[in-house]
Amino acid sequence: MPEAIIHAISARDRQVLALSLTPQLGPTRLRRLLERIPCVEEIFTASLTELESVGLPAASAQSIALGESLRLADAELKKLQSAEGVQLITYGSDAYPPQLAEIYDPPLVLYVRGNAEAMLEPGIAIVGTRHPTPYGLGMAERLSQDLSNCGLVIFSGMARGIDSVAHKGTVAAGGRTVAVFGTGVDVIYPRENRKLSEQILELGGALISELPLGTGPTPHNFPLRNRIISGFSRGVLVVEAGEYSGTRITARCALEQSREVFAVPGNVTNKQAWTPNTLIKQGAKLVATWEDVFEELPSEIRLLLQARRGQLPEPKAAGLFDAAPQAALPEEQGQVFGAIKADVSIHIDELIERFEGRLTSSEIFTALFELEMANKIRQLPGKNYVRVF
Amino acid sequence: MPEAIIHAISARDRQVLALSLTPQLGPTRLRRLLERIPCVEEIFTASLTELESVGLPAASAQSIALGESLRLADAELKKLQSAEGVQLITYGSDAYPPQLAEIYDPPLVLYVRGNAEAMLEPGIAIVGTRHPTPYGLGMAERLSQDLSNCGLVIFSGMARGIDSVAHKGTVAAGGRTVAVFGTGVDVIYPRENRKLSEQILELGGALISELPLGTGPTPHNFPLRNRIISGFSRGVLVVEAGEYSGTRITARCALEQSREVFAVPGNVTNKQAWTPNTLIKQGAKLVATWEDVFEELPSEIRLLLQARRGQLPEPKAAGLFDAAPQAALPEEQGQVFGAIKADVSIHIDELIERFEGRLTSSEIFTALFELEMANKIRQLPGKNYVRVF
Repeated sequence: MPEAIIHAISARDRQVLALSLTPQLGPTRLRRLLERIPCVEEIFTASLTELESVGLPAASAQSIALGESLRLADAELKKLQSAEGVQLITYGSDAYPPQLAEIYDPPLVLYVRGNAEAMLEPGIAIVGTRHPTPYGLGMAERLSQDLSNCGLVIFSGMARGIDSVAHKGTVAAGGRTVAVFGTGVDVIYPRENRKLSEQILELGGALISELPLGTGPTPHNFPLRNRIISGFSRGVLVVEAGEYSGTRITARCALEQSREVFAVPGNVTNKQAWTPNTLIKQGAKLVATWEDVFEELPSEIRLLLQARRGQLPEPKAAGLFDAAPQAALPEEQGQVFGAIKADVSIHIDELIERFEGRLTSSEIFTALFELEMANKIRQLPGKNYVRVF
Repeated sequence: MPEAIIHAISARDRQVLALSLTPQLGPTRLRRLLERIPCVEEIFTASLTELESVGLPAASAQSIALGESLRLADAELKKLQSAEGVQLITYGSDAYPPQLAEIYDPPLVLYVRGNAEAMLEPGIAIVGTRHPTPYGLGMAERLSQDLSNCGLVIFSGMARGIDSVAHKGTVAAGGRTVAVFGTGVDVIYPRENRKLSEQILELGGALISELPLGTGPTPHNFPLRNRIISGFSRGVLVVEAGEYSGTRITARCALEQSREVFAVPGNVTNKQAWTPNTLIKQGAKLVATWEDVFEELPSEIRLLLQARRGQLPEPKAAGLFDAAPQAALPEEQGQVFGAIKADVSIHIDELIERFEGRLTSSEIFTALFELEMANKIRQLPGKNYVRVF
């Protein structure tokens, strides 16, 4: 059986996979190795002495020269065979995204579930805190939808909070989104995103990781993943993130990779606005609507997207400021909608108290239900409500 | 009697005042006139034909040549005599602020109540909407206090909302602030600022206008005043302003006058954040704390202020994000404080409902009172409460 698997991919792919599994062989050493021995095949025919002489640590050199790396690769390929629908794309192959190959430390291998072509498309990363405010959630959802409607692929990291909402917003718009995992691509983390993963795949998106199958969540791997998210993207949009957030790493990666950095401003009294506001201070583009991102894209990409889509979405910023959007709603719905804010959630009990003597609780429940169906409000955990914007 | 008054100021001051009261003589015509006849005295000895030949409209030329302008000046000087404590400072005199003289259309005269030297000091304009949110109010107050504590004079326009709070914040910090009126300097508008005007004067600030005494509020004059506010300042800080706000005029004046423009970012869902966010997009400096303004000042001004003050205020941004500032407060106060937000006000009824069964209304009243005394919260009209930050 292993024979068959090995034949299914090229000898070069197998060797690159073997390098990726070689102990103590990080991006810097790998770079140095490939500078000295640019042909991957020759690395595997080199002697132990030769490998050590180009600066590899003993453990790496032995693993390669003694065939241990290739054995690890074959074991991984066996797993790959039984993991349904996972492709392996190696650095240097045609399917490898050129924009990712440009970065300082491109991953040697990408494990891909779903549509591998999605990662080749022009796209924007939308990232942020795991602990967003309703404002951040709303902005991430709105911008992912609008940018997806422009034809951009939305890249993110599948984490709780802003990342998940960016994927969900794209799915809601029927668009393509690529989730870069900090675990093996067969390990859905956090688990509540299982359904979201399926939806991403159904809509022609992809789930991607550089980590071997079965790799569980370890804190060390999440920051490393960020360089891939920004590496795929034309620009990185930061929605909300606190002062010590991992999102700052993604923004730094973006700058190092010469990607545009975008940020959504927020009240300086909101601690999750610290990173976006600070990035803006440092030169990131301020984003209020999708247009602020779109107009910064290179003109060839804008023309491509416009040609594909025919028509771009209307900017909805004006709608945000609608003086009395409840005016058009039926009586009770309008009243209840008027009491719900976009930035701060309100609890069902507070709503009921507020309308005591004017609306019965069942009228309020009905209005909330209708408003949710009309996608005008959103329910947050614990029966809290905010406006969708 | 008129003789005595006229002797009290120089002949040149009287002539400049006369020019300022001449009908149909705006800044552009005046500039052209002074280019052709640079000596003010000669303007008043010129013949009607000479004045018309340098491009003055008939009404202006006649008013000057036939002595009507000087009669208007004498009448104004008489009023000035009876208006207590109003000084007249004319363009070209030693007391006229050099930075204001630099602008394209400097006012010919300044009517000044209070300490005329305050307008010569390095200062920052803080301006914004008449309809701020609690967030905008809080930021205007905080920044005016902190910048005033740095030794800067705070310039603003005495309007309701952000302007008034900028003056009040400075007064609360015991600092100097200069209010530029869009009415005569003897007409306090809006009237509720009467007490504030007195406080400004007591603390060594000034009230200033270019308009004749007794000029009432007319919409036309308020935008014109904005060029003086920015003209006095080293930079203009915009706190909150909607899309069609007069504050945009002040910001545009600032740019035309090569003043630095600063803006406080805000949630894009807040329509009063439109102008500051848009200004930031266009290159204004994002301001989260006073330091963001201070570090942009020319180094000679920073050194001067530091030398004068000895010590600068601590930046308080960290305090905004205090994880549990209520922890240090007594039991009920802590609970009530925890329910009050910095950005959105809460009504007393809502507080009472929220604590039903846990705190009595009198416990809540006491806690609110204590918190207000401790300057931790602020009461807005109609028994609404917000945090002070």
